[in-house]
Amino acid sequence: MTGPRYTDIVAALPADVPFVGPEGMERDQGFPFAARIGANENNFGPSPRAAEAMARAASDVWKYADATNLELRVALAARMGCGPDQVIVGSGIDGLLGNLVRMVVAPGDAVVTTDGAYPTFNYHVNGFGGVLHKVPFRADDREDPDVLLARAAETGAKLVYLSNPDNPMGSHHPAAAVRDMVDRMPEGTLMILDEAYVEFAPEGTAPEIDPEDPRVIRFRTFSKAYGMAGARVGYGVGARDLIRTFDKVRDHFGMNRPAQAGAVAALGDDAWLDRVRAEVAAARARIGTIARANGLAPLPSATNFVTVDCGRDGTFARAVLKALLARGIFVRMPFSAPQDRCIRLSCGTSPELDALEAALPEALAEARGAETV
Amino acid sequence: MTGPRYTDIVAALPADVPFVGPEGMERDQGFPFAARIGANENNFGPSPRAAEAMARAASDVWKYADATNLELRVALAARMGCGPDQVIVGSGIDGLLGNLVRMVVAPGDAVVTTDGAYPTFNYHVNGFGGVLHKVPFRADDREDPDVLLARAAETGAKLVYLSNPDNPMGSHHPAAAVRDMVDRMPEGTLMILDEAYVEFAPEGTAPEIDPEDPRVIRFRTFSKAYGMAGARVGYGVGARDLIRTFDKVRDHFGMNRPAQAGAVAALGDDAWLDRVRAEVAAARARIGTIARANGLAPLPSATNFVTVDCGRDGTFARAVLKALLARGIFVRMPFSAPQDRCIRLSCGTSPELDALEAALPEALAEARGAETV
Repeated sequence: MTGPRYTDIVAALPADVPFVGPEGMERDQGFPFAARIGANENNFGPSPRAAEAMARAASDVWKYADATNLELRVALAARMGCGPDQVIVGSGIDGLLGNLVRMVVAPGDAVVTTDGAYPTFNYHVNGFGGVLHKVPFRADDREDPDVLLARAAETGAKLVYLSNPDNPMGSHHPAAAVRDMVDRMPEGTLMILDEAYVEFAPEGTAPEIDPEDPRVIRFRTFSKAYGMAGARVGYGVGARDLIRTFDKVRDHFGMNRPAQAGAVAALGDDAWLDRVRAEVAAARARIGTIARANGLAPLPSATNFVTVDCGRDGTFARAVLKALLARGIFVRMPFSAPQDRCIRLSCGTSPELDALEAALPEALAEARGAETV
Repeated sequence: MTGPRYTDIVAALPADVPFVGPEGMERDQGFPFAARIGANENNFGPSPRAAEAMARAASDVWKYADATNLELRVALAARMGCGPDQVIVGSGIDGLLGNLVRMVVAPGDAVVTTDGAYPTFNYHVNGFGGVLHKVPFRADDREDPDVLLARAAETGAKLVYLSNPDNPMGSHHPAAAVRDMVDRMPEGTLMILDEAYVEFAPEGTAPEIDPEDPRVIRFRTFSKAYGMAGARVGYGVGARDLIRTFDKVRDHFGMNRPAQAGAVAALGDDAWLDRVRAEVAAARARIGTIARANGLAPLPSATNFVTVDCGRDGTFARAVLKALLARGIFVRMPFSAPQDRCIRLSCGTSPELDALEAALPEALAEARGAETV
């Protein structure tokens, strides 16, 4: 008896699991983290109104969600200044990226992104047999619109990915630079503008884009500023034809019903959003202070995390990361050089940053000791 | 400016949305349904313990779920008598079917199912370019293992779908017949055993299957007996190699965190499950009584719905369905002949069945009147 006959694409995919979450790491190490500041979650939590709405909806969970997600799409359209038929709701930006890649990328098709940018996007492109062309970050640790555009033109890419603000570096481009990139897209290339962190960015980061512009789709999420990563609610804004095409492939009854009620409630609580922004700004500042006090260089951040330059190479930064993990501080770091000279610290609560502050000097000493051995 | 260049498969998919939910129908008709008995939801609701667990988890929703879903998989493994590494958790059976089809079906690959069986499975197969081979129901309105097997051998099918109990007919095979079908699978064909409704079926419906048997994967869900359709939690039990292969394509952080807490709690409340089963049995009996009182023939049901033979052809049954919808009774019906002589009524609450009882005579009179015109 033999097993299933997998497709050639799936048979060739790597079998190792690329995404290890903090729960898995806690199990492996045998103790819980004192600071959960590695996944860019929003440790200040969801709006109490959103939490209440989800709790209320729990007893209604016997009903499938509205397959059109209309209530949420109407609320989002009002917020985004577009029509509900220009909004697609999905299971986080991750889920929507999976749908979009499937819609556009056939085996062998070219896709352009930045080396070290969002790995889940690459996972989807590889998963559908696309060919990733990676360009380097700029010297200032920003994604590089000029080089992305040039590579897209050169490869005939179907998709180009830009996150603004950027993860994992925390850098951002002003709206005009993004706007300019849209206007220079090669014919037939779709730009994915991932704005997962945009609510944390300075005023003037999000460009004006006509939703009917066929050259770009913008993605946002309730996972970051709205503190609902575990709810799985993301959305895309784009041209009606593109939005309708998601209906050809998406899981129509795939959204969690309480999560949608929570998202609608969250949109109605701007005061909480403002409060989260203030907490995040304060935590960013404190992470910067802690880093500098330890001789490290925090990079400017337009997000809810601070990427900290450890001042040496990737080997050293990985040693710092490892020493922090061993001390109960869950953090992550960029994958590719030279960005892997850094570690990435999410904006935790005060007790979590206390734990970071206590652990960092020891972790650095250990990493420095390891290096001189 | 042109739009995105979709893949050939996606470009060729139909643009109409195949899945219209009750909320959409309510909006179209301008009034709410008095009875929501069309989607085989569990109108008796989730375990209060599950609802409490989800409500409690709402404030924790800022955390991504454990990417391995380990706690739930351990609980399911204990229930299913297998190892956690033989269990995959996903976004409902729908989501898991989408993953599995993607893993196995390349464009042009043969897949066998029953004409009129679960449409979402067909949606996924078409969505990945597979070729569906449909065999008829048996004369007794059961899916037909012999013909499914013969067609699988003839077409070299990569997948064969069997739901037991069956949707939309409510029929079932005893365990021995399913067991026999597994044992007769052609080499290299994977059987999908969809047991979404099995908790409602008579003792002796679910066969013993070695989880390592490479010829079959069984799927179950929290959407039906556990009353959590809107939570999106389904699971599959199969061989380790097959379960691991889901990790190559699935959305690793795609599960809703409160939903998993709810599912774990639901597994710990067998008393509620028993109560739901009793409510469903009583509602099934009452739907049968209502049908017979109106001269219609309820089919035997091993599920939480009753498929009712309206005694004429599809045109007549569609007229009955339409007349019920117009009276606020949300029901559905099988798509293909001769099963489309029936309408399908989910087990609603007493007030919902009161509404059905009141509306059915009028609906039938209207349908009969329409036919004689």
